[in-house]
Amino acid sequence: MAESSPAPLGGPEAPQRFAAGAPRVLVAGATGFAGALAAHLLWRHPRFELVAVTGRSDIGRRLHELYPRYRVPLAIEQLDLARLEGIDAAIVAYPHAAAAPTVGSLRELGARVVDLSADFRLASLSTYERWYGVHPRPDLLAQAVYGLTELHRERIADAAIVANPGCYPTASVLALAPLARAGLIADVVIDAKQGISGAGRVYDETTHLSMAAENIVPYKVAAHRHTPEIEEQLAWVGRGGLPEEPNGAGAHSRDAGASLAVQFQAHLVPLDQGELASCYVTPTRPVTAVELAERFAAAYDQEPFVELVDAPPGVREVRETNFCRIFAAADEHTGKLLVFSAIDNLWKGTSSQAVQNLNVMFSLPEDEGLL
Amino acid sequence: MAESSPAPLGGPEAPQRFAAGAPRVLVAGATGFAGALAAHLLWRHPRFELVAVTGRSDIGRRLHELYPRYRVPLAIEQLDLARLEGIDAAIVAYPHAAAAPTVGSLRELGARVVDLSADFRLASLSTYERWYGVHPRPDLLAQAVYGLTELHRERIADAAIVANPGCYPTASVLALAPLARAGLIADVVIDAKQGISGAGRVYDETTHLSMAAENIVPYKVAAHRHTPEIEEQLAWVGRGGLPEEPNGAGAHSRDAGASLAVQFQAHLVPLDQGELASCYVTPTRPVTAVELAERFAAAYDQEPFVELVDAPPGVREVRETNFCRIFAAADEHTGKLLVFSAIDNLWKGTSSQAVQNLNVMFSLPEDEGLL
Amino acid sequence: MAESSPAPLGGPEAPQRFAAGAPRVLVAGATGFAGALAAHLLWRHPRFELVAVTGRSDIGRRLHELYPRYRVPLAIEQLDLARLEGIDAAIVAYPHAAAAPTVGSLRELGARVVDLSADFRLASLSTYERWYGVHPRPDLLAQAVYGLTELHRERIADAAIVANPGCYPTASVLALAPLARAGLIADVVIDAKQGISGAGRVYDETTHLSMAAENIVPYKVAAHRHTPEIEEQLAWVGRGGLPEEPNGAGAHSRDAGASLAVQFQAHLVPLDQGELASCYVTPTRPVTAVELAERFAAAYDQEPFVELVDAPPGVREVRETNFCRIFAAADEHTGKLLVFSAIDNLWKGTSSQAVQNLNVMFSLPEDEGLL
Amino acid sequence: MAESSPAPLGGPEAPQRFAAGAPRVLVAGATGFAGALAAHLLWRHPRFELVAVTGRSDIGRRLHELYPRYRVPLAIEQLDLARLEGIDAAIVAYPHAAAAPTVGSLRELGARVVDLSADFRLASLSTYERWYGVHPRPDLLAQAVYGLTELHRERIADAAIVANPGCYPTASVLALAPLARAGLIADVVIDAKQGISGAGRVYDETTHLSMAAENIVPYKVAAHRHTPEIEEQLAWVGRGGLPEEPNGAGAHSRDAGASLAVQFQAHLVPLDQGELASCYVTPTRPVTAVELAERFAAAYDQEPFVELVDAPPGVREVRETNFCRIFAAADEHTGKLLVFSAIDNLWKGTSSQAVQNLNVMFSLPEDEGLL
Repeated sequence: MAESSPAPLGGPEAPQRFAAGAPRVLVAGATGFAGALAAHLLWRHPRFELVAVTGRSDIGRRLHELYPRYRVPLAIEQLDLARLEGIDAAIVAYPHAAAAPTVGSLRELGARVVDLSADFRLASLSTYERWYGVHPRPDLLAQAVYGLTELHRERIADAAIVANPGCYPTASVLALAPLARAGLIADVVIDAKQGISGAGRVYDETTHLSMAAENIVPYKVAAHRHTPEIEEQLAWVGRGGLPEEPNGAGAHSRDAGASLAVQFQAHLVPLDQGELASCYVTPTRPVTAVELAERFAAAYDQEPFVELVDAPPGVREVRETNFCRIFAAADEHTGKLLVFSAIDNLWKGTSSQAVQNLNVMFSLPEDEGLL
Repeated sequence: MAESSPAPLGGPEAPQRFAAGAPRVLVAGATGFAGALAAHLLWRHPRFELVAVTGRSDIGRRLHELYPRYRVPLAIEQLDLARLEGIDAAIVAYPHAAAAPTVGSLRELGARVVDLSADFRLASLSTYERWYGVHPRPDLLAQAVYGLTELHRERIADAAIVANPGCYPTASVLALAPLARAGLIADVVIDAKQGISGAGRVYDETTHLSMAAENIVPYKVAAHRHTPEIEEQLAWVGRGGLPEEPNGAGAHSRDAGASLAVQFQAHLVPLDQGELASCYVTPTRPVTAVELAERFAAAYDQEPFVELVDAPPGVREVRETNFCRIFAAADEHTGKLLVFSAIDNLWKGTSSQAVQNLNVMFSLPEDEGLL
Repeated sequence: MAESSPAPLGGPEAPQRFAAGAPRVLVAGATGFAGALAAHLLWRHPRFELVAVTGRSDIGRRLHELYPRYRVPLAIEQLDLARLEGIDAAIVAYPHAAAAPTVGSLRELGARVVDLSADFRLASLSTYERWYGVHPRPDLLAQAVYGLTELHRERIADAAIVANPGCYPTASVLALAPLARAGLIADVVIDAKQGISGAGRVYDETTHLSMAAENIVPYKVAAHRHTPEIEEQLAWVGRGGLPEEPNGAGAHSRDAGASLAVQFQAHLVPLDQGELASCYVTPTRPVTAVELAERFAAAYDQEPFVELVDAPPGVREVRETNFCRIFAAADEHTGKLLVFSAIDNLWKGTSSQAVQNLNVMFSLPEDEGLL
Repeated sequence: MAESSPAPLGGPEAPQRFAAGAPRVLVAGATGFAGALAAHLLWRHPRFELVAVTGRSDIGRRLHELYPRYRVPLAIEQLDLARLEGIDAAIVAYPHAAAAPTVGSLRELGARVVDLSADFRLASLSTYERWYGVHPRPDLLAQAVYGLTELHRERIADAAIVANPGCYPTASVLALAPLARAGLIADVVIDAKQGISGAGRVYDETTHLSMAAENIVPYKVAAHRHTPEIEEQLAWVGRGGLPEEPNGAGAHSRDAGASLAVQFQAHLVPLDQGELASCYVTPTRPVTAVELAERFAAAYDQEPFVELVDAPPGVREVRETNFCRIFAAADEHTGKLLVFSAIDNLWKGTSSQAVQNLNVMFSLPEDEGLL
């Protein structure tokens, strides 16, 4: 069923409201859920100029025809690097392996890139190749910084390439970093649940309402690609946030056997947007509720987008926001530590975190355009 | 995501429980929602033997692997007429135009057919061709009877081909027949709402949960193919249920201009199964609430699957049943008559009505296997 | 299940960002869905100062504890008129009959009021009393203007009391006004569908997910209180928008028999927010598609919040916006005119329209704080 | 919104189809979700006679007026023991503490009872009192058998009182029993997800669609009453299924410190019916995939209602059935064993398991009335 297109709505000639001299930004791959939301956030952003949205399908249609709620009147173009000179930055929303070559081309134009794919997330090339196959541009790895803003803010500020985290690692690593930093994780189970938008603009039995409704389904049992990403980050945090050779050849953190083997399991549940990571930690030593609260407060009290709450958070509370809500508890019965972390998988889990990173990269207030 | 297949569950060698000498039935097109449900209902039916399920995809997979709730262990086969000798009946669940040739082949094998497509629903060939294009087998039209059981029961009993109604005509014609019979409809608006299963096992933006959820969408405005089907049936009822030349060449009911132009409009709403037709009738003369109640009681008090209720029915009340619940009211303010008709679009709207028709065709109790 | 409350989040001491000298606004009845959203919209509004939120329950809790997505840290207070001196305006979100006395008290304090109840919507006192019972403050009716911004903008600018429309009348009257203005409506059926939030923060079998899911239910058959509201407004538009004695004693529009009897029917469908009015008009004379398009364009081309679209709108397209999307079509088969109008029942249908009205009342840009 | 009541539908005079001399059964507490479904299953059961349904509300209304899909025309009565002489069995669907006295009264009438509450589930009285408060009838504990059919079938056959398991323990214990039996569980995390029907016919912010939709919420963190129930059963299985003094005073299994401390966590997700238990086991020694498969096959290959599947099960697959689908996997990366167990919380998790138990108690085929 074709969605309706509005009659007037300004069109491309309607000027976007941005400051003079604002960085000029491209969104490549704007027809998928993640790219479209990134374009929406940039279009309404007061300090960036969204100059183009590209895609492989729907060429010539305006983005708000595909996504009426995202009021971006730009027409979707094919990616033409020759026409993109003078752009300052890009968000690339391609599948893994397809992203890296385009990231490389954009780098040659001088653009700084936030890449939403997995191509630059893993420090270890061998880990990447075990999970994703041959890496198309390993030469670029040394330029890349992992884009979980709260953990890597300083390095993101100067990065040429920011590897935006997966949605599950975003929720999981934020939940566990305060414990990993203190060396408190002896063992951990992460049971994550996500809405159907996590499957993307993919049309199959996973996303058909008549199959997804009234269902709860575990998927990729013992084989989710976000597992090594979580493990690398927790190991990095555990080493005091001082990577040996971050994001480049030689950073064999997992291969060295130093890191924790994380039990990560994903589930699809019947909602649109929202993600909860329920983390069950066996601590290396007994931890009291007081210590637990203090560690999380120390980690996050100054963070603009991490909220510590005193009851288990529902994902609805953070829907369509860049916030992550975290609740931590010590279970006296089992001695385990429980941490629940709620985000919107498309926002903080993907596209609004990409904008948060762009804000950091261009020295803007971190919450600009996100509140 | 592959759905799981059960380990034991009997397999094809597990005997279906049916009476000796039971009619042998085929379901052709069993991989779609309608065919799969028909197979499920026949498999658990005590008086029919489901001998084969065929499809164009998923050959070799057992039906309950595709539809775990439908516990039919038969493997999906390609349709091979040579192997089907000796079958007594078939339910054909193909798209329109694809159905008619197969119905013809099955007729040559001597099988009686319930066809779920639109190919044999319209008495007027010219109406069919205006809405659907060239008819592949107009020669078979004379053998076909319209399969709204409550209206055509006697002729269904002897029919070679039963054209199972569309889901919208099922709800709409049941709602309006008592008024049409009395010549009381001067004008009518039918506003119908249906769940996403009505779109079938089709994977696109209509059925993706992230687009269908939180949505209400009108579709096929002023152009739904079920409109002429409803108009023909109401005209037939208005003529006293005595068609000139029913379902065959020459039955130019609509062409003769005698019938009412029905305003029919369909909407998709975010549920799986369920359909409501809200009918707004401008009567040819004032009708009291008492007369209204008497006319509906007279029409349906003996019907096993039509329930007259004294409050507006929710579709949930008839979910996964062959029942149609109807509530009629006279609006003193406007003088209009309101009739609300609730069915399960996949059950009474499609597959369980097909089994109801098979019961009638083989002289079984009409509710056999349906309660 | 208690929803979580955030740890830091500023608290009331965190200054709201508003212009100096901004009008000071109260939301009375902020614990229900409508009042809470109004408070949220005012809190983030750059030109109003939200000074207090009051309620009858949850006293002392901060509003964002009840509604975490609405990041309003004000504590809910009991309404204490003595403490409210100096307020410039109020949004009152009380049930009908309970609202009018409070509106009166606020008027005595000099505040201008947008009332979300039905108490001041009907011009005819006798019509009000037929549908709602005794009016608590008929003396105030002469001060009230009907708050459908697009129709009554000029009078709203100067009004002491703005009677914010019902959500169904908002969608319905916007859909039909261009036809009513031209005297083209001989007869009309409005079939409206709405999400469960329309039932409000009411806990019963209507709103329980296990009863509301997989359901479509018509309600208040031939008896919805929004019917006279729609009829009055269409009659007013039909008279050229020149009411005899608007919103006061003597404006006996309906009693005079001049108005059209509208067939209005509401349905609940299983989503949260969203409303579609499907309108079926029998015209007083044949109307071509071209004339239809011209009339709607003339009516709405300059409207910031009404969008004419060229395909049937889904309510998802306007979710959480103040937009109304309208699609009009002429059905050649029946001669009827079809108009589909999509809004978010809580936004344009209630709370964001209240803010739109406040913008008009205080000479601010009409879309301030709403984009 | 009142749900509609059917006009004819037989009424109480319509004879239920049951065998002569069938056991006469009462459902006490039939107005809640669990009791109503139990009544529905018994009404359509060919070998039991449902003689009465009782409740504390809705007296005099027929059950199918409250639950139209459950076609039980009996009128709801107040419980009057004097009128119940001659009943053979009862299902009691009361809250904990309220159930035990009624169970006692029914025992005095000679009826055998399946109790859906927690009152007789725990062998240890001290454990009960720690979690639920004072036990009203500890004297009856010695008559009670825990009603997880697959584990206690022989003792259920002769039991006077069967304590029907909680829905979470049903899914969890079936998932873990084959490992517990072999002493393989060193540590276990159970992350369970359930639809909103699990909250029962309770009207609050947990069940309101506008709050439950688009949400995932953990609840009762580190404090769910089903935890000790799971622990007792796993301990019982671990002892070889030979309880010291089962279900009676003196069975201080947990107090003896012998049992495992289970980490159990429940979540509400936005569907109606369905429950998944995701179990993460740290084994006491390495377990291969082959051994894992063999252990589960040995445990369940002969079970009519436990299905071992070779892909992770979605809860939709078992919706409205008495089946439990289990998928077990060994994670080579972490060394943990993963077991996923899917049931319908209202069916196998509650009411259909109660009927399964009644079948066992009255020497009927275990699947009678359940397929």
